[in-house]
Amino acid sequence: MLPTNIQTDRQGRLRHFLTIDGLSRGLLTEILDIAAGFAGVAAQAVKKVPLCRGKIVTNLFFETSTRTRTTFELAAKRLSADVLNLNISTSSTVKGETLLDTLRNLEAMHVDMFVVRHSDSGAAHFIAQHAAPHISVINAGDGRHAHPTQAMLDMYTIRHHKGDFGRLRVAIVGDVLHSRVARSQIAALNTLGTAEVRVIGPRTLIPSDARELGVHVFHDLTEGIRDVDVIIMLRLQRERMRGAMLPSEQEYFQLFGLTEERLGAAKPDAIVMHPGPINRGVEMDSQVADGPRSVILQQVSFGIAVRMAVIAMTLGAQSGHPGDGLDG
Amino acid sequence: MLPTNIQTDRQGRLRHFLTIDGLSRGLLTEILDIAAGFAGVAAQAVKKVPLCRGKIVTNLFFETSTRTRTTFELAAKRLSADVLNLNISTSSTVKGETLLDTLRNLEAMHVDMFVVRHSDSGAAHFIAQHAAPHISVINAGDGRHAHPTQAMLDMYTIRHHKGDFGRLRVAIVGDVLHSRVARSQIAALNTLGTAEVRVIGPRTLIPSDARELGVHVFHDLTEGIRDVDVIIMLRLQRERMRGAMLPSEQEYFQLFGLTEERLGAAKPDAIVMHPGPINRGVEMDSQVADGPRSVILQQVSFGIAVRMAVIAMTLGAQSGHPGDGLDG
Amino acid sequence: MLPTNIQTDRQGRLRHFLTIDGLSRGLLTEILDIAAGFAGVAAQAVKKVPLCRGKIVTNLFFETSTRTRTTFELAAKRLSADVLNLNISTSSTVKGETLLDTLRNLEAMHVDMFVVRHSDSGAAHFIAQHAAPHISVINAGDGRHAHPTQAMLDMYTIRHHKGDFGRLRVAIVGDVLHSRVARSQIAALNTLGTAEVRVIGPRTLIPSDARELGVHVFHDLTEGIRDVDVIIMLRLQRERMRGAMLPSEQEYFQLFGLTEERLGAAKPDAIVMHPGPINRGVEMDSQVADGPRSVILQQVSFGIAVRMAVIAMTLGAQSGHPGDGLDG
Repeated sequence: MLPTNIQTDRQGRLRHFLTIDGLSRGLLTEILDIAAGFAGVAAQAVKKVPLCRGKIVTNLFFETSTRTRTTFELAAKRLSADVLNLNISTSSTVKGETLLDTLRNLEAMHVDMFVVRHSDSGAAHFIAQHAAPHISVINAGDGRHAHPTQAMLDMYTIRHHKGDFGRLRVAIVGDVLHSRVARSQIAALNTLGTAEVRVIGPRTLIPSDARELGVHVFHDLTEGIRDVDVIIMLRLQRERMRGAMLPSEQEYFQLFGLTEERLGAAKPDAIVMHPGPINRGVEMDSQVADGPRSVILQQVSFGIAVRMAVIAMTLGAQSGHPGDGLDG
Repeated sequence: MLPTNIQTDRQGRLRHFLTIDGLSRGLLTEILDIAAGFAGVAAQAVKKVPLCRGKIVTNLFFETSTRTRTTFELAAKRLSADVLNLNISTSSTVKGETLLDTLRNLEAMHVDMFVVRHSDSGAAHFIAQHAAPHISVINAGDGRHAHPTQAMLDMYTIRHHKGDFGRLRVAIVGDVLHSRVARSQIAALNTLGTAEVRVIGPRTLIPSDARELGVHVFHDLTEGIRDVDVIIMLRLQRERMRGAMLPSEQEYFQLFGLTEERLGAAKPDAIVMHPGPINRGVEMDSQVADGPRSVILQQVSFGIAVRMAVIAMTLGAQSGHPGDGLDG
Repeated sequence: MLPTNIQTDRQGRLRHFLTIDGLSRGLLTEILDIAAGFAGVAAQAVKKVPLCRGKIVTNLFFETSTRTRTTFELAAKRLSADVLNLNISTSSTVKGETLLDTLRNLEAMHVDMFVVRHSDSGAAHFIAQHAAPHISVINAGDGRHAHPTQAMLDMYTIRHHKGDFGRLRVAIVGDVLHSRVARSQIAALNTLGTAEVRVIGPRTLIPSDARELGVHVFHDLTEGIRDVDVIIMLRLQRERMRGAMLPSEQEYFQLFGLTEERLGAAKPDAIVMHPGPINRGVEMDSQVADGPRSVILQQVSFGIAVRMAVIAMTLGAQSGHPGDGLDG
């Protein structure tokens, strides 16, 4: 078990953002509220706020992800921070002294934040535990463990379209077993009091202890999405499909691919989400991906605002009400 | 044929900058005039203007070109824009859905501009046709098709030194057949009313339909540059020289390389241009490249101002007269 | 012999920073004093000063060094300059025309500074000699020749902890023969009037003419560090250890590795320095590296301030007293 209380200070304010686990409903709601304040920045004549001027946000990516790095880079620049992009080969392992020396050196350069992406579960925690007191750490995806900013942008999207979580049925479809995104989504949905959370997938891709996570398990797509308000499709790693766990892409699509026809089982106003990038014809067909119920591109837009919120909060740079900061 | 009218809006203002074809003499002149306003920025104490603050200019390079990327990056930074550099492997082809999904995602992140470099002719048009309404696209070179900002910095250089195009004879020398630069230069020179445009090169490297482009064709260098005001040397791709089209570098230089002696055939005050980087001893010898008639490095300087103009115009960020913006 | 007088203008102000050789004690002290003014910037609410706004600092790295590049990038950003990072393959050699053409092009883009890292000794001098008058050049390490900003951050660290150089004994330990860092440190220590400078290492790794550099030579570690105030450990290039010059890492550590026990020979308040990254268990054990006398991480912090000073001074951007600039 990774410690979760290092995420907040004694006053309960966010210091690091590593995992949804252990964070209160109040804090998750605060993230969403502050993000809502930032969502308007993109509509301003000058799409910047000076909240984090002079701060150095360091993208510490041990695993390549242009897409995720770009969203953090844009969020930081919108906050007027300077960004340092460092791609670090995973040859310097999480536990070796070399990584600690790298961290110590960056700290000595007075950087303010590490945004960490790593293929090892627990890497962001490790770094947060060993970082100097003035450093904030954000987990941008660690192994199969967590991807909390992705989960929060999903929550933002759901709240934007559906309002109160207490009245919602949400289904998560696909390779739940290997997905750090699913793990963080389930934690966030439960913390925010979602009425019912379902996971849907083949037996080989659903964790055996799924029920203990507080979700209902389905192995049939149509049955699983019946009357749901929100459908979250997970991305299928193509590596898995070549392994023993799945017969073929075509067969997967036949059983768990989302089509307009199958979507008929969900509520008429159900929204369809996906963390991207989509494998069209595998997780869903293009009619759904580009259709009227898809909110996939809105997720990307809201992702910038949510990352701005998390960066500003952990840097202690947001003001009492988000509105204040925007005037600065 | 690629559509060209998507470059301007209903009021005739520049929305994208993809090709010289279809643009009016008035618009090309406006680009040069606005660039002239920006040319002074480099001489200011603080070499920046705040015209594009908060804008995100995305360098979307499917083909590596540090040099061209750098000029756009500097131009954008001089305008106070933020720059996002993305190198995208060409494995995601222009027509595949993957590219469109990439574009949609970047648009959802509220970037404002794509500066596109691609080895396929038509790539920038394709992206402009499919981009969201708030996005501007600049072609930074697509296959053999066009390189319009290079052509405009060449026009700027010619106007700076020679004034009215209506009295000028301009010769373009080298591999016209494969050159996107030559294609854009010819279009710009003709639109701006140049008295005579010549192309000079071996038969294998001059397009068979060259005369239809409104140029005079020469296969002898001395004859071709006789009494010209401007000589534009094209860069010879070394790959071509290894192919069947050219016997050897030495032989090419003997026939089409520019020397001080040969330069005697041109007007005494003729200027020599080259898009860079020069293959010294192939397209010209060093005496010419570094000589008093060479304006090659001025082309580079003017290139920053011209790119600033095109970025500001397509973003709708320039003011009525260029002078206004500079005070901001 | 490389010319050194190109580093200063007629008024004795710093134009380039290429080597410690030939610089006066007054100028070195001025660098340290201006750096002291910048050391406080990291403690400000907004860790930036607007001294170099609109300037373009170009990192021209022919040899990869993420660490050094990062410190210059951060220093430039703290001064509000824009940074252009260019990694240039060493295939374009220092003497070839290609490099000169690259320089001319960057100059024509109105960049203001080249920070040069190169595996050839003399590369930064070559570039400074051929650069346009408006360009400043900083040597960020050239071959075995010099690494003057590293030496100055070391001097800063020593002065910070020990004050007047005239009362100090300083020992430099390790592969002095191949070290550009050692060469620059010795020159700086001598110029600043250090009472005694010692070098310590195996015979194969001490230059045969070491005494002519004004240092005392020791081949025994305990003897060499006896009663010194400062111990500077050099980094051992692992390539050397695989060559004929050294038997093995273990044997090197047994003879020249710094341990708490051996440290007993130095003054009780001696400080331990290292340019990083440390090979733990080779140059020193972790007890020393992380112990109370180690100032290794402070060196990194001071390095940002020293690089800010050198950038601001060579750009002519610092004010009469450093304090003034900070208000700007």
